[in-house]
Amino acid sequence: MNKSEAIALVKSRLTEERFAHTMRVAETAQILAERYNEPQEAVQLAAILHDVAKNDPPGKLKHWILNSDLPDDLLTFHHELWHGPVGALLMEQEQGITDRRVLNAIRYHTTGRAGMTTCDMIIFLADYIEPARDFPGVDNVRKAAQRDLCEATWLALRNTIRHLIDKQAMVYPDTFYAYNDLTKYVNGGH
Amino acid sequence: MNKSEAIALVKSRLTEERFAHTMRVAETAQILAERYNEPQEAVQLAAILHDVAKNDPPGKLKHWILNSDLPDDLLTFHHELWHGPVGALLMEQEQGITDRRVLNAIRYHTTGRAGMTTCDMIIFLADYIEPARDFPGVDNVRKAAQRDLCEATWLALRNTIRHLIDKQAMVYPDTFYAYNDLTKYVNGGH
Repeated sequence: MNKSEAIALVKSRLTEERFAHTMRVAETAQILAERYNEPQEAVQLAAILHDVAKNDPPGKLKHWILNSDLPDDLLTFHHELWHGPVGALLMEQEQGITDRRVLNAIRYHTTGRAGMTTCDMIIFLADYIEPARDFPGVDNVRKAAQRDLCEATWLALRNTIRHLIDKQAMVYPDTFYAYNDLTKYVNGGH
Repeated sequence: MNKSEAIALVKSRLTEERFAHTMRVAETAQILAERYNEPQEAVQLAAILHDVAKNDPPGKLKHWILNSDLPDDLLTFHHELWHGPVGALLMEQEQGITDRRVLNAIRYHTTGRAGMTTCDMIIFLADYIEPARDFPGVDNVRKAAQRDLCEATWLALRNTIRHLIDKQAMVYPDTFYAYNDLTKYVNGGH
């Protein structure tokens, strides 16, 4: 699947607003890929497709999770977390995408995971800091993204965990694992 | 092992200050056990022994972790987390304690875990709120402990996670699991 095909696909699946967000994520991801020497092709495909399942109804997402190898424990967490893993699944099974960099970046763009790749972090961050995002701490993450990809991802994960526990929400384990993993880096552990 | 033997044991193993803390935890645990109808015998033994390995040198704690079934991943976290699991191990292997309520309450008193028992929560909380404790949020947990054991434990876990991420420290997975588990309760999930 090339870039134009991916754009056509998400345009047909997303609301106008969500599509506009997707295009901003793709632009932001392009800048990050240049900054951190990551091949543009995989990053662009992942960015364009990251929210491909975002406007699917929760019932449909649930059906895909139950009828796949995706972990069922996703269903005990907020349905906001379902579209990443399902999006990756659909792109693999229905569109024949085989590039693991692309599939994993789509899958983990909301939760993060331990051992995030450069591509994972670029998509996660681009989604977090695209120009229309406006919430406490986002400018701090934008600045960090210009100097250190891991540190910026860590800051975003930390904000996310804070935000979730402030509103007494559960936190998906992969988000904790990603936070712990990058905390080692931030503290000079690797 | 009865209560007097347990007191004699920890008195021989702990600094004066740590022993005084232990006695305050035992008093606080007694009040909580009365309030929540938990058998005093197990609670008292767990409270007296919860810090039994606290003053052992980290190198010794590490040795026990490496030469037991305790998870090695403990060693990648702060050594403050080692004395609970090692204390439980020593009380089982060297003192012949077999009561799982006692052993688990000792083991998980610093981290918590998913599916905490009443005894686990009493020791965890008594350690957190004993009268000499004085840090932001502790009075709020003290008040909650009078009305709802699970809610109070959840508040303490939430404070702990906040405190750790504020100082950019890693959070042991059991603490996340405990937080997520009790978040379901606090939100009316069970």
